[in-house]
Amino acid sequence: MARQQQHSDLLAQEIPGQPGDGSDTGSTAVIVSTGAEHASAGEALAGYLRTQATAFLRGLGMRGEAEAEADALLRASARRIAGALHTYADLADPAWAEPMRAELSWLAATLGREPQYVGRLTRLLDALRRLSAAMPAEDPAAVQAAAGPGAGRATAAPAPLAVGAARAAALLERQLTLARTRAHSATLQAMGSARFHALADSIAVLASEVPLTPAAAGPVAEVLPPLAAQAHTRLAEAAGTLPLRRAGHPYNAEAVQAALGAELTADLQDAPWHQVRILLRLSRYAAEVPGSGGRVAVPAPRLSEAAAVLQRHHEAAESASAVAAAARTPRIAPATAYALGVLHADQRHEVEAARFAFSRLWQA
Amino acid sequence: MARQQQHSDLLAQEIPGQPGDGSDTGSTAVIVSTGAEHASAGEALAGYLRTQATAFLRGLGMRGEAEAEADALLRASARRIAGALHTYADLADPAWAEPMRAELSWLAATLGREPQYVGRLTRLLDALRRLSAAMPAEDPAAVQAAAGPGAGRATAAPAPLAVGAARAAALLERQLTLARTRAHSATLQAMGSARFHALADSIAVLASEVPLTPAAAGPVAEVLPPLAAQAHTRLAEAAGTLPLRRAGHPYNAEAVQAALGAELTADLQDAPWHQVRILLRLSRYAAEVPGSGGRVAVPAPRLSEAAAVLQRHHEAAESASAVAAAARTPRIAPATAYALGVLHADQRHEVEAARFAFSRLWQA
Repeated sequence: MARQQQHSDLLAQEIPGQPGDGSDTGSTAVIVSTGAEHASAGEALAGYLRTQATAFLRGLGMRGEAEAEADALLRASARRIAGALHTYADLADPAWAEPMRAELSWLAATLGREPQYVGRLTRLLDALRRLSAAMPAEDPAAVQAAAGPGAGRATAAPAPLAVGAARAAALLERQLTLARTRAHSATLQAMGSARFHALADSIAVLASEVPLTPAAAGPVAEVLPPLAAQAHTRLAEAAGTLPLRRAGHPYNAEAVQAALGAELTADLQDAPWHQVRILLRLSRYAAEVPGSGGRVAVPAPRLSEAAAVLQRHHEAAESASAVAAAARTPRIAPATAYALGVLHADQRHEVEAARFAFSRLWQA
Repeated sequence: MARQQQHSDLLAQEIPGQPGDGSDTGSTAVIVSTGAEHASAGEALAGYLRTQATAFLRGLGMRGEAEAEADALLRASARRIAGALHTYADLADPAWAEPMRAELSWLAATLGREPQYVGRLTRLLDALRRLSAAMPAEDPAAVQAAAGPGAGRATAAPAPLAVGAARAAALLERQLTLARTRAHSATLQAMGSARFHALADSIAVLASEVPLTPAAAGPVAEVLPPLAAQAHTRLAEAAGTLPLRRAGHPYNAEAVQAALGAELTADLQDAPWHQVRILLRLSRYAAEVPGSGGRVAVPAPRLSEAAAVLQRHHEAAESASAVAAAARTPRIAPATAYALGVLHADQRHEVEAARFAFSRLWQA
């Protein structure tokens, strides 16, 4: 706690009240202008890293009051620092940057687990609610016409299938809440560890001084854009290998193949899409550095939409896996297993829907 | 048997070797020209009914050799006679036509059951095979790249989920084969019944003489087109009440709502679509009568495509219900129930895909 306070003091001295977004899928990060458009590449990168480091230290100071927001801020800045160090690796001392990136990845992964379980549970309970909804929200007239008199009563009665859905919801809630609690403890433990304090110290140093290489002395306009372009190219190439044409056909029933397939089928299918999701994030972070050219092959709003779609793809795929895992719980009732099967297929269709949406966005 | 022979003899005397299609979703039925373009409306209708009656009697004669083909022919002509008597009800004596239609509907329904069970089992086993396929057929390179070395071995191992799929397949095979056997017996019994022989006798009479009303004496060009137009209008109106705009959005996840909903949800959702399917069929049969104008609001190839799509909608919806029924079998293993849940959701997505396809066709 004393150390955390110390980092916050450092922050208070440095940048009083810089606003941060804390979100990770938004298209724009708040970037404090370095006011040095004609500076060296190293200065531009260092300026960006300082901004992120400041956000990180601010997140650290916030943890006492708003833990979730603070963690989101910590995670977003950790990812951005790691991303910039990856894309502009030529400009920073690798002996310092590489261990730093590894520690940032560890922290971002640790911090990410709890919100992921929270989001997964919300998504699955919402889906179960939607799947067991007695009636579509629209077209009450058409529904009534089709039902005829007396049908309203029958519809209102609880269906046997709904029992399975309720049990499936209870099972998922139990399992994911347990996972969440564990993730929370792991986060608390990580935040109190010597490992974390060493990382926070490095980031505090980063706020004042970034160890650069000689290559960083070159002018911004010559050094940064080619490195950023490499990140964009890696993204474009990876997206180019995706089966976009097939995914662009609605109802291709491709993603649901994995639902009853061998365990690995889903992972194999999803992996290239997850890879593009990560490269897309790196490409966006690379473009945030002032003077990097900023331009990506795809316009920014469409990029951020594509990022959101791939995020949905990832969440649906992970949720489907969680459902499959829940279905392997010993001694569950057949009705519960049935509801989980429906839910699994539903989430795999969400995966397919996300691929369709990405395909349309990317090929537009 | 003696009576069946008698009907066949009648046929042999009347029309030697008129080809029939026997299919029911094809866009064109073989229509023997009456050679009487300037005849009365009654003569045109009677000509059409005679053609269908002849096809019916030919089907009856074929039953000894090729039962399935014969039944398809009997069913197709029974439906067409009933359809024409419905659309052109003004032209035929109702005291004769109405009981005739009722009997034709009974026969068509009886004959339809066995092939429906056969089709349903094939559809569901194909779907289970697709759902538990270890790997998508395309992109073996991409899959291999994502898998890395050694993954091939792991994929080849039988997955635990596949066990559930195999058991689900066995359960469905048992249940649907039993239903098929019962339907076969029911058909055999119906074909030997006095009820059927009375119907066959009426149809044999139809081949030579149709009891017409005075309205049937009017000229073809004045009488038939307005009646056919009514059938097309009923179709257009019913299709107009469908939620086509929503169905035209891919991945609206509307049809799958029914998967865990109250028992009636699916029926309520599907009923208006099934209604359009029946009106589409009536509209197509109405247009087959020579001199009816033939013109439907939608071009014929697109109509036949729409019919095929709605047929798929119907089959997927019925298959999903069969899966839900199988899932209610007592004492099934959770893995079996899980696979049935996935299969149910898959078939509901096929329902949704068919609605999407129809929506696109109809609004084009």
